[in-house]
Amino acid sequence: MNHEKWIREEFRVISNSLGFIYTPKEEIEARHAMLRKKMDAEGMDAFLVAQKMDYFYLSGTAQDALLLVPLDGKPLLMVKRELERARIESPLEDVVGMESYRELSSLVREHMGREPSVLGLEMDILPARDYFRFQSLFPGSRLVDGSQIIRDIRKIKSPFEIDFMRKAGDIGKKVYHEAKKILKQGMSEIEFGGHLEAVAKANGHEGLLRVRSFNYEAYSWHVLSGPTGGIVSQSDSPMGGLGLSPAFPVGASLRRMKAHEPILVDFGICYHGYQADETRMFSIGKMDRKFIDAYKACREIHDAVLSETHPGSDCESIFINTLKLAEKLGYKESYLGPPGLQTRFIAHGIGLELNEFPFLAQGHSYPLEEGMTFAMEPKIVFPGEGSVGVENTVLVTVKGYEILTPLEMDIFEV
Amino acid sequence: MNHEKWIREEFRVISNSLGFIYTPKEEIEARHAMLRKKMDAEGMDAFLVAQKMDYFYLSGTAQDALLLVPLDGKPLLMVKRELERARIESPLEDVVGMESYRELSSLVREHMGREPSVLGLEMDILPARDYFRFQSLFPGSRLVDGSQIIRDIRKIKSPFEIDFMRKAGDIGKKVYHEAKKILKQGMSEIEFGGHLEAVAKANGHEGLLRVRSFNYEAYSWHVLSGPTGGIVSQSDSPMGGLGLSPAFPVGASLRRMKAHEPILVDFGICYHGYQADETRMFSIGKMDRKFIDAYKACREIHDAVLSETHPGSDCESIFINTLKLAEKLGYKESYLGPPGLQTRFIAHGIGLELNEFPFLAQGHSYPLEEGMTFAMEPKIVFPGEGSVGVENTVLVTVKGYEILTPLEMDIFEV
Repeated sequence: MNHEKWIREEFRVISNSLGFIYTPKEEIEARHAMLRKKMDAEGMDAFLVAQKMDYFYLSGTAQDALLLVPLDGKPLLMVKRELERARIESPLEDVVGMESYRELSSLVREHMGREPSVLGLEMDILPARDYFRFQSLFPGSRLVDGSQIIRDIRKIKSPFEIDFMRKAGDIGKKVYHEAKKILKQGMSEIEFGGHLEAVAKANGHEGLLRVRSFNYEAYSWHVLSGPTGGIVSQSDSPMGGLGLSPAFPVGASLRRMKAHEPILVDFGICYHGYQADETRMFSIGKMDRKFIDAYKACREIHDAVLSETHPGSDCESIFINTLKLAEKLGYKESYLGPPGLQTRFIAHGIGLELNEFPFLAQGHSYPLEEGMTFAMEPKIVFPGEGSVGVENTVLVTVKGYEILTPLEMDIFEV
Repeated sequence: MNHEKWIREEFRVISNSLGFIYTPKEEIEARHAMLRKKMDAEGMDAFLVAQKMDYFYLSGTAQDALLLVPLDGKPLLMVKRELERARIESPLEDVVGMESYRELSSLVREHMGREPSVLGLEMDILPARDYFRFQSLFPGSRLVDGSQIIRDIRKIKSPFEIDFMRKAGDIGKKVYHEAKKILKQGMSEIEFGGHLEAVAKANGHEGLLRVRSFNYEAYSWHVLSGPTGGIVSQSDSPMGGLGLSPAFPVGASLRRMKAHEPILVDFGICYHGYQADETRMFSIGKMDRKFIDAYKACREIHDAVLSETHPGSDCESIFINTLKLAEKLGYKESYLGPPGLQTRFIAHGIGLELNEFPFLAQGHSYPLEEGMTFAMEPKIVFPGEGSVGVENTVLVTVKGYEILTPLEMDIFEV
């Protein structure tokens, strides 16, 4: 059979039967309206969106493509692979094929009727070589950095987006409940993490987590036990863990878990591109008093952040207040990492990526707004011994907040 | 306990006991010698290596860092996080801490005694914003693209690297044998893929696959059954599959597998950063004659490529010969994808990344060399019906080749 014909006639049937949800036209239009408003304010007359999650957000498809958003006129999605599927997934009207970058310049000129004068690009992440290529394809355009405005519009989630995050939270709940059944003394951290990943996938987790970064790699199997919980590694996290080798020096290791030690499980779920992140503590038999007390402190800090979570609260102030509370509780030297290696955030924005706005962090003095979502994770680290922490994904509502990862917060003791 | 002290005193003990292998000094020195030779030929007096797998290759650590390689003099590893662990993982002598990019310029000037005049960067992948930052930090340097020379030295694998790939192949063998036990009618593709991923991880697979790309995301759970095997999607693969949603439109889906249909399992393993990639066919009961015949053709093409695999063979010619053989066998319209969507390679180089040199592909006319490794994957696609294929990771030896993924090649029928 012909592939084009099959995609046109059968693809929607099979994908619908398996629960695919496509982004509605009105949703995409609302996003474009926000983007164009900011483009106008910045003096851009076109934006060439190249990063996958950015154009997924603005087109509804993650096929290999480039998206042109003119300030005036309709957007144009130029698809390298695969065109027919992109036409089904995206509600945009102008979806055309593009064999290679060589066609880009003429496609853009024909669509706009001219070359853009000020063209926005995602300079924070677009490779230099692509930047040079765009420079030579659009010699009359001034290329400017538009990453901030895209990140800015993406920080407020719509009800359509929040539903996916709630669903991700539901999958997470199943994973943690299953975790309690699976965990056994002598099992390695990575074996445990791998099982949880399998449970999550069977329930619709997409397997990959995403972060907007050149080098940073996200992963779900952040299972740390006893001393591996006390290891700081490459990631901007209070504890990185041992990992499996010098090539992947974070997350679960082949260490076999023992009774009475703290086992930290920080597991992210991705559903339809949207992520929920959460952390809970496990132990085989009771864990030492020291860790139980520290975990109580994490919960107290967690609750204190929630009490300040409502539109208008200043993100940096919330973070600084947690430093004061941690000190008062006796954890100044272990809160968010060991001395000299402490991270400077208590929450990161979350959605299609794990490092969206807002950051409840040093240097981030701006107000919380309704529709923002963040993963908040007070953690306490004792090098050589272990670490504890708790994490939930939280939505800022008009009145306060909603927890998108509703799961019991007591230590899961098996 | 103090983190620095613990890392210095205990980290090596725990990581050694769990099988961590560190890159020896002589290995790193040999790689630097190759790089400096090419830098000299290109007129670079320094290289600032920023991409994680590139500096892992050249330093032995994947901690968050930047590596300066002067043409003359010792390399300098500047570590953002975490310094003490980087000092254990890397045999380099000069490993220093760097709080932020602000220190970069003075660290480089002090180390070299001057500003570089021609500074190599990985322009193929370095974000534009970082390029601009380096431009302002080194106003007297001419910044040039050095990605090609790094990719060039990485294409020949040392015995130290090949051992990791053999080990990855061993893990793969266990995964496929377990797959035969796990596969059941009515199981979803992703549930099957998730189980295999869990088995692989418990045996030391690092979970992530890596590809040198801005947007492309590698993953292991490429399990396609019946019609999903006939779907071309965003990836440069003969068949992309359905995936789990428009946000992740490739690989395994929630489709439940049925008897008698072709089930393609393309699973990659990563061990100590080094990857092995392989594909085998599965079926529940016998699959239709059409697919069995097509699979035989894939094996014939596979064997034909092997017969040409030895130092000196031209990579493009090998690819073109497979086109002729596929046509002769009656698969001109289905080999490597459906008409209009056929991929133009039969093998991709593999090592730390899935898209290394060599490519046995259109436009890649250069000879195979001893020490090159590639994943070779003849595949045949029938839209609406399914696809078949086989894949092995192959090392070019002085006399011919060695298969690094030794596993029976018959259809796994359960």
